[in-house]
Amino acid sequence: MNKQIVTPPKIGIDLGGTNIKAGIVSDGRIIYKDSRPNLLDWSFERTVDEIASLVKSLADKANVKISECKSIGIGSPGLIDTAKGEVVYSNNIRWKNAPLATELGKRLGVLVKLHNDAKAAALGEAVYGAGKDYKTVALLTLGTGVGGGLIRDGKIEETQAAAGALFGHITIDYNGRLCTCGRRGCLEAYASATALTADAKAAMGIANLDGKAVFDAYRQGDQKAKEVVSNYIKYLGEGIVSIINICCPDAIILGGGLSAAGGILTESLKEYIKDKVFGAELIKTDIVVSRLGNDAGIIGAALLPSQF
Amino acid sequence: MNKQIVTPPKIGIDLGGTNIKAGIVSDGRIIYKDSRPNLLDWSFERTVDEIASLVKSLADKANVKISECKSIGIGSPGLIDTAKGEVVYSNNIRWKNAPLATELGKRLGVLVKLHNDAKAAALGEAVYGAGKDYKTVALLTLGTGVGGGLIRDGKIEETQAAAGALFGHITIDYNGRLCTCGRRGCLEAYASATALTADAKAAMGIANLDGKAVFDAYRQGDQKAKEVVSNYIKYLGEGIVSIINICCPDAIILGGGLSAAGGILTESLKEYIKDKVFGAELIKTDIVVSRLGNDAGIIGAALLPSQF
Repeated sequence: MNKQIVTPPKIGIDLGGTNIKAGIVSDGRIIYKDSRPNLLDWSFERTVDEIASLVKSLADKANVKISECKSIGIGSPGLIDTAKGEVVYSNNIRWKNAPLATELGKRLGVLVKLHNDAKAAALGEAVYGAGKDYKTVALLTLGTGVGGGLIRDGKIEETQAAAGALFGHITIDYNGRLCTCGRRGCLEAYASATALTADAKAAMGIANLDGKAVFDAYRQGDQKAKEVVSNYIKYLGEGIVSIINICCPDAIILGGGLSAAGGILTESLKEYIKDKVFGAELIKTDIVVSRLGNDAGIIGAALLPSQF
Repeated sequence: MNKQIVTPPKIGIDLGGTNIKAGIVSDGRIIYKDSRPNLLDWSFERTVDEIASLVKSLADKANVKISECKSIGIGSPGLIDTAKGEVVYSNNIRWKNAPLATELGKRLGVLVKLHNDAKAAALGEAVYGAGKDYKTVALLTLGTGVGGGLIRDGKIEETQAAAGALFGHITIDYNGRLCTCGRRGCLEAYASATALTADAKAAMGIANLDGKAVFDAYRQGDQKAKEVVSNYIKYLGEGIVSIINICCPDAIILGGGLSAAGGILTESLKEYIKDKVFGAELIKTDIVVSRLGNDAGIIGAALLPSQF
């Protein structure tokens, strides 16, 4: 690991419902990183104290003066008011109108830029990861849920409350499966890791399965796993065609746990969508897997100061 | 009609598969307009000659010198290379790599800016029509097909080949109706005027019906018309929820023939989507009808010189 630090240093924080992660980032690479648990019964003040303490200890370790940073970035789950630096609402970390940027900024003595965590991760992948050779990039994360972000020319697409690009919540079947959001037929209810493993458990009659086990069984030629994966490609492919027809990105980056399946996903999806995208012979949208993995959130957050 | 012309004059052209329309535009209003048929058996050269002749006669009538325009704008169906000024491909007017901007520019002695016709119409509505009080606006046209455009901060969202915002081609049911694009379940196959009238004919057993007649029957309390319209609201509502979850506009403008139904559509749609949009209690997307109607294409085209 290259520990040479380009001045001014960049600090990125990725706040999640389970962990608080932070890193010192130089030229798109994490030089130092550290994390702490985020306990959901903590008060807002306590969580901000923990974030500040994590960042201070990390800066000390890296011999970085926080005051040398013009500003630092943090990604948080939920709807965000980027101008006010507020988490307007997060179901995940149970905050409402939480002045995260201001309060963290007070504790660290630096300007803090706040955005949605999925958008920050998309920014990281777009600028320094699998999207760096493309102009417009959509990140689609296949994990517990299906998340996303859309980056045009190195900028997070600006929308009210840092919403939009909620790719998990486009319907693929208006009469279909009930989604956690209350709507029917959302892509998330078909294409999340949760959905894939539930489908595989039902089809294969195995109680304990994760995404990797499903793709392993597929590779070994298990007939039922083949059916499950084939249906999964259809579901995800339908979502991707809709995303291309609406957003027309130059690349779709698959992230989240299931993206580890790599070529099985990307090649099958390319085949599935090739005659379904509108004007497919002329529209070029590549499908690739994430390069930054779980670090995308930190690296993207470190880029937030240049966004707004 | 106010015939006072603000200098420099603006000229907008709306090229369609049936008609060529052009107008002299001042401060978002059409001062003079005229149109000619566009015959699909004409050569590319002949069509460009006709467009040039229409614009010249219109400029004469309005006492406008084309050379006083820094540039003029034209919207065309199809995929567009805005940098080259080429219609890359149009199924509608049967062109491939047609250098429309260059050739029209030669004939008129002025720089010509070319964009997709639906995007130009969305621009017109966003800047001078029903969208003028909103920051981000999606136009959704409900006509023979379902078209669209997305405008952020008065700019057409930039994508490859002027594609994207193809709101008619998001699926609402991956096992559903076959769409003219070859895919199954596209919104267009459910929410176009063509789809509505086909559904109404089947349900009501009447051979000749247009969109207006369906809504008239609904207003008069016809039970079958009520069912048809209720299903239509569900289909269109599902598409709109997906559009909001992905694009998060501040307003969706309904255009095209069916938008004449007005409040029946907008109020029913608001009711349908209100608990289905992700984070609905915090995301505010208004649903309104077009104000510029068929003039949106000309008015938007006249704005193209300021776009790129």
